Amino acid sequence: MADAMWLSESVARRAASGCTFSVDVDRVGEDARSLRLRDEIVRRLGRPIVSEAGRANVRLVAGVTSFDSDEAFSIESHDGVTVIAGNTTAALMYGLYGWLRRRTLGGTPTDGRIVSAPDQPIRMIDHWDQIDGSVERGYAGESIFFGRPGSNVHAEFTGFPQRDETDAFRGDMDRVEAYARFLASVGINAVCLNNVNVRGLATNLIADPWLGRVAGIARVFSSFGVSTFLSVNFAAPMRIGGLGTSDPLDPAVRAWWAGVADRIYERIPDFGGFVVKADSEGEPGPFAYGRTHADGANMFAEALAPHGGTVIWRAFVYNCRQDWRDRTLDRARAAYDHFRELDGRFAKNAVLQVKFGPIDFQTREPLSPLIGGMSRTNLIVEFEITAEYLGHQIDVNYAVPQWLSMIHADTGRDDADGRPLETADYLRDVAVDPSRVGYAAVGNVGMDDNWTGHKLAQSNLYGYGRMCWDGSLSAGEIAREWTRLTFPEADGDARATIERILGTSNATYERYTAPLGVGFMVNRNGHYGPGVNDYEYDRWGTYHYADRDGVGVDRTVATGTGYTGQYSPRVAATYENLATCPDELLLFFHHVPYSHVLHDGTSVIQHIYDTHFAGAAAVDDYIAQWETLAGRIDDTAYENVRERLQRQRENAIAWRDQINTYFHRMSGVDDAHGRVIHR
Amino acid sequence: MADAMWLSESVARRAASGCTFSVDVDRVGEDARSLRLRDEIVRRLGRPIVSEAGRANVRLVAGVTSFDSDEAFSIESHDGVTVIAGNTTAALMYGLYGWLRRRTLGGTPTDGRIVSAPDQPIRMIDHWDQIDGSVERGYAGESIFFGRPGSNVHAEFTGFPQRDETDAFRGDMDRVEAYARFLASVGINAVCLNNVNVRGLATNLIADPWLGRVAGIARVFSSFGVSTFLSVNFAAPMRIGGLGTSDPLDPAVRAWWAGVADRIYERIPDFGGFVVKADSEGEPGPFAYGRTHADGANMFAEALAPHGGTVIWRAFVYNCRQDWRDRTLDRARAAYDHFRELDGRFAKNAVLQVKFGPIDFQTREPLSPLIGGMSRTNLIVEFEITAEYLGHQIDVNYAVPQWLSMIHADTGRDDADGRPLETADYLRDVAVDPSRVGYAAVGNVGMDDNWTGHKLAQSNLYGYGRMCWDGSLSAGEIAREWTRLTFPEADGDARATIERILGTSNATYERYTAPLGVGFMVNRNGHYGPGVNDYEYDRWGTYHYADRDGVGVDRTVATGTGYTGQYSPRVAATYENLATCPDELLLFFHHVPYSHVLHDGTSVIQHIYDTHFAGAAAVDDYIAQWETLAGRIDDTAYENVRERLQRQRENAIAWRDQINTYFHRMSGVDDAHGRVIHR
Repeated sequence: MADAMWLSESVARRAASGCTFSVDVDRVGEDARSLRLRDEIVRRLGRPIVSEAGRANVRLVAGVTSFDSDEAFSIESHDGVTVIAGNTTAALMYGLYGWLRRRTLGGTPTDGRIVSAPDQPIRMIDHWDQIDGSVERGYAGESIFFGRPGSNVHAEFTGFPQRDETDAFRGDMDRVEAYARFLASVGINAVCLNNVNVRGLATNLIADPWLGRVAGIARVFSSFGVSTFLSVNFAAPMRIGGLGTSDPLDPAVRAWWAGVADRIYERIPDFGGFVVKADSEGEPGPFAYGRTHADGANMFAEALAPHGGTVIWRAFVYNCRQDWRDRTLDRARAAYDHFRELDGRFAKNAVLQVKFGPIDFQTREPLSPLIGGMSRTNLIVEFEITAEYLGHQIDVNYAVPQWLSMIHADTGRDDADGRPLETADYLRDVAVDPSRVGYAAVGNVGMDDNWTGHKLAQSNLYGYGRMCWDGSLSAGEIAREWTRLTFPEADGDARATIERILGTSNATYERYTAPLGVGFMVNRNGHYGPGVNDYEYDRWGTYHYADRDGVGVDRTVATGTGYTGQYSPRVAATYENLATCPDELLLFFHHVPYSHVLHDGTSVIQHIYDTHFAGAAAVDDYIAQWETLAGRIDDTAYENVRERLQRQRENAIAWRDQINTYFHRMSGVDDAHGRVIHR
Repeated sequence: MADAMWLSESVARRAASGCTFSVDVDRVGEDARSLRLRDEIVRRLGRPIVSEAGRANVRLVAGVTSFDSDEAFSIESHDGVTVIAGNTTAALMYGLYGWLRRRTLGGTPTDGRIVSAPDQPIRMIDHWDQIDGSVERGYAGESIFFGRPGSNVHAEFTGFPQRDETDAFRGDMDRVEAYARFLASVGINAVCLNNVNVRGLATNLIADPWLGRVAGIARVFSSFGVSTFLSVNFAAPMRIGGLGTSDPLDPAVRAWWAGVADRIYERIPDFGGFVVKADSEGEPGPFAYGRTHADGANMFAEALAPHGGTVIWRAFVYNCRQDWRDRTLDRARAAYDHFRELDGRFAKNAVLQVKFGPIDFQTREPLSPLIGGMSRTNLIVEFEITAEYLGHQIDVNYAVPQWLSMIHADTGRDDADGRPLETADYLRDVAVDPSRVGYAAVGNVGMDDNWTGHKLAQSNLYGYGRMCWDGSLSAGEIAREWTRLTFPEADGDARATIERILGTSNATYERYTAPLGVGFMVNRNGHYGPGVNDYEYDRWGTYHYADRDGVGVDRTVATGTGYTGQYSPRVAATYENLATCPDELLLFFHHVPYSHVLHDGTSVIQHIYDTHFAGAAAVDDYIAQWETLAGRIDDTAYENVRERLQRQRENAIAWRDQINTYFHRMSGVDDAHGRVIHR
């Protein structure tokens, strides 16, 4: 029996106790979603549904309101009767779970009305699941969609044991249903089932017989209001279509994709569309035919348009064979350099998916200059819930603070009234089709009993969903919600302890890993643990340039790679200037001597020592804090986190010592406080 | 059709043209070996064998001489008649191939007698072949013994695709026969079929049904005078024997191994014995039961003794979870620290196999202090023909000069007359059983057409065999032999070019890789290419300790790890003292500032730059030299080496630039000659 995450059935039943429901969806029609809605009430909550609304004290009504968003809902309470209303059945599902959450958290008004509408129309989870059952960058066991029944290993995704590929599907539909419920409960409305690196037989997911199995999964998601996407291989027309080309301007290729889309929509009427990684890290793409990314994306858009589908085109394109010797090259420039000139050339149902930062989900990055650099393009901002660079769900790392700082970052653009646009509003502002913008994130669940390996890593999935729906929530509010829902047995002190650990964990991880935004000092085998020089002479464009005198990447216009020039003048000036560049991004933008003094008066080298000692010490403190929870929270969760914290401690010490020694050997500067730095 | 290596059939037939043979082995008995000997003459050389010796001009006679060694042979020529004689049929096989080689190389006296006896009684090749067909540290394709028929991939041995393991054997007996002939032709007399890391089902090779397949291979080897060994898993009594312990002093365990030996010798009467890697890098061993390595080895020795078998116990034992922070620890000390105290406690038919250097087959190491540190133990010196740390048979690296320097190294011990003992003589001097000492080396062949991936890497297999038989040969003489035998079509200039490349290749590789004996600046993923810091903060005990001031490992008694104290006073003094320590081992023994001046007057830092520029330039020169050979040697060989040299060039440049930049960033010292060192 898998972990209930934040949806404990007993808590939900307590919240709904004494309630009698009515469900009126006649105006939008009875369908799989309304059946699912009734099922949630009767089976999950154990409450009756009456046919006469007058006899119910919780009344779900679709189609009588007319919110701008078909996903918005209202909750209105008067005289002991609550009405949950929305345009659609999907909205009622969000309303039901929103009502339950409020009841549990104690925030339901006895009388009054609240309206809740999602900030972002696209709220998506990308799975990097592979048909052999492995998950690229997965740290919680095998795929919940693919792999053998009953199997769950933690092998590296690149070295996964060869599998019988005649049936790629795990077939655990209970698991899929539970997952769909989790997603719906926090407002996620789209999911892509398979890895963007579409290798081997995974290319066949868009065709029979596997398409039928995809449809079975999609039906479950659809009943919860979640639409299903597939990642496709740009070269599929040649690899499985028998064509001699995959040229996006070739009529036969376009016809082939149109046929593929037609057959998919026959099976999956509300299919979301395609996700495409093209001409990136070795994947095929339009460049082979002298075509642009827009040509590629628009071909898929044309095939999907008749069905209302969307193509999501990833902007994660860069030269992954960079020469470390040439300091004028800068991978951070790549997305902007590739896509800026294509602004306005993407179809209405095409969306460009941009990683939040210019590199790759590092602990600290500035906002991507494409978010602010486009003016007539649908954009999705991409996050990574799975903790690839954030501790592999071994180290506690509640990443919501970082993500929020990205969606609230200044894009450098102003609205019509001259007010600075944050990411969230900017997306609407530049959209060709405002219903096709939003957020996507790589998921973090697998077949582990608790779904995410580390119990506390559930908070990131929860938090990501909540952030997509309501970007005005603070990281602390989201942590408070999650903790209360997840540990209903915990007393207030215990919850405060958990929230304290969550709330500081992202900063703690940053402290003991790569300093001051320099990034990528990570072990090249899998990205867990330190490897200060692991990428320094490699082809990935991720360097720190540390020498005996200083460290950091000069990305200024004045003396460096010119990357800061990709931002609007306002943002560019902040980063270009040493005096205004935020310390936490100092080494991302500047190469400075170890003696450079930060805004708080410490030198760079002393800051490195200080933060690394502090970061590792914080983990010791987490262990002490966590141990006070023994017997006060669920034993399984307690033991899971206790064990992970021990491993985190080892990791933090490895980072602390390797970073400190590396920079001590380089700089020759001793710690001002005389702490142990190994020679 | 696989490459003929140094045994071109047409060359052999030319050498034997006009000869009529007689074979007289009556006194030692007709057996598989004499049948093989006849077969080599009739089928390989295409020459007749007559029953009346008087009618033959090449007469092979066994049993009439009585050499000290049963493998020695004589070749005596008078009046157009040649007599090849030896104690045994095996000796005649060596004699036949020795005679053919001399005929081809032009060194056969018309009249006179030569006697040739092997320097070392054990002349062995260890295969690190795995039953899935992969070869640990193999760079020439899959195993010639194991794997699927017709299959040949170059996957990393750790990530090999899972295989059907019901039949582990490749079954290509023609390939095995050809290989046995190569070995016999250079005097190899023992081969171990499987990897010393005996994992999974490989444990079952010592039992039916796979033992029957081993016996089939062993019969082929035996007919060429090569005895077969197997690597065994110390924990086999528990893993496949159904016992509750593998304690070497437990009577049931001893009885089980005795039974195993009995059953093997029923099938393979001249089976060589076992090779054991125990309590090393995670393999099981006697420590689990509080027993010593001698206890472990002697258990196997007891089981093998009734059959005349030998157990070979590897001394490659060290703590592979070392803490890089503790500079008092020193992996170089490990073998001596573990085994010195067991001197004299190994059975007569047990042999301790010691790697030539104290670390692990690096480009430059001093002789292991165990070779010189024991007084009553059978020893084998272990070499590595497969180019794990020497360029993966992509870079040309004729390693015979390095190996010869090891067998001629001063062990620090004197013979009875007070003369310094070199390795080769020392082995005899300290042997408990002088017939059980010698050399072993990890082989370098696989299923590639040319056996070794790089055509020129064949020279290492050839050279190793020749060195085992006759340690007085120079590296140049061996290269000359090999080149002449391998490229019979080449003119003298072409051969000189090849010999020049071979002769300098080991030094060239050393120049562009890790400097001055510091070692292990190698890419941790597979050990090809640079990775200056890849092992610096890892657990393997292989550090260079470079900082802004200097580099190297202080292994002195005075101020370092005390490793030099493991040598005899004479050798220890040489290494301990900066003034007498050879430059090429400077950083192995000392931590010095970059400004330290070498014996030739250059500073360490300038030496690093100079050698790295020179090493990479030498590869350019090899390419130019090699291209003069187009059309003058076999096309396949020409193209193979040409392609490898291009890859070697890339590797040499990567090494040059990464090493130079690393040390320039560290030291801040510019190149005295103003060449390009990237920042």
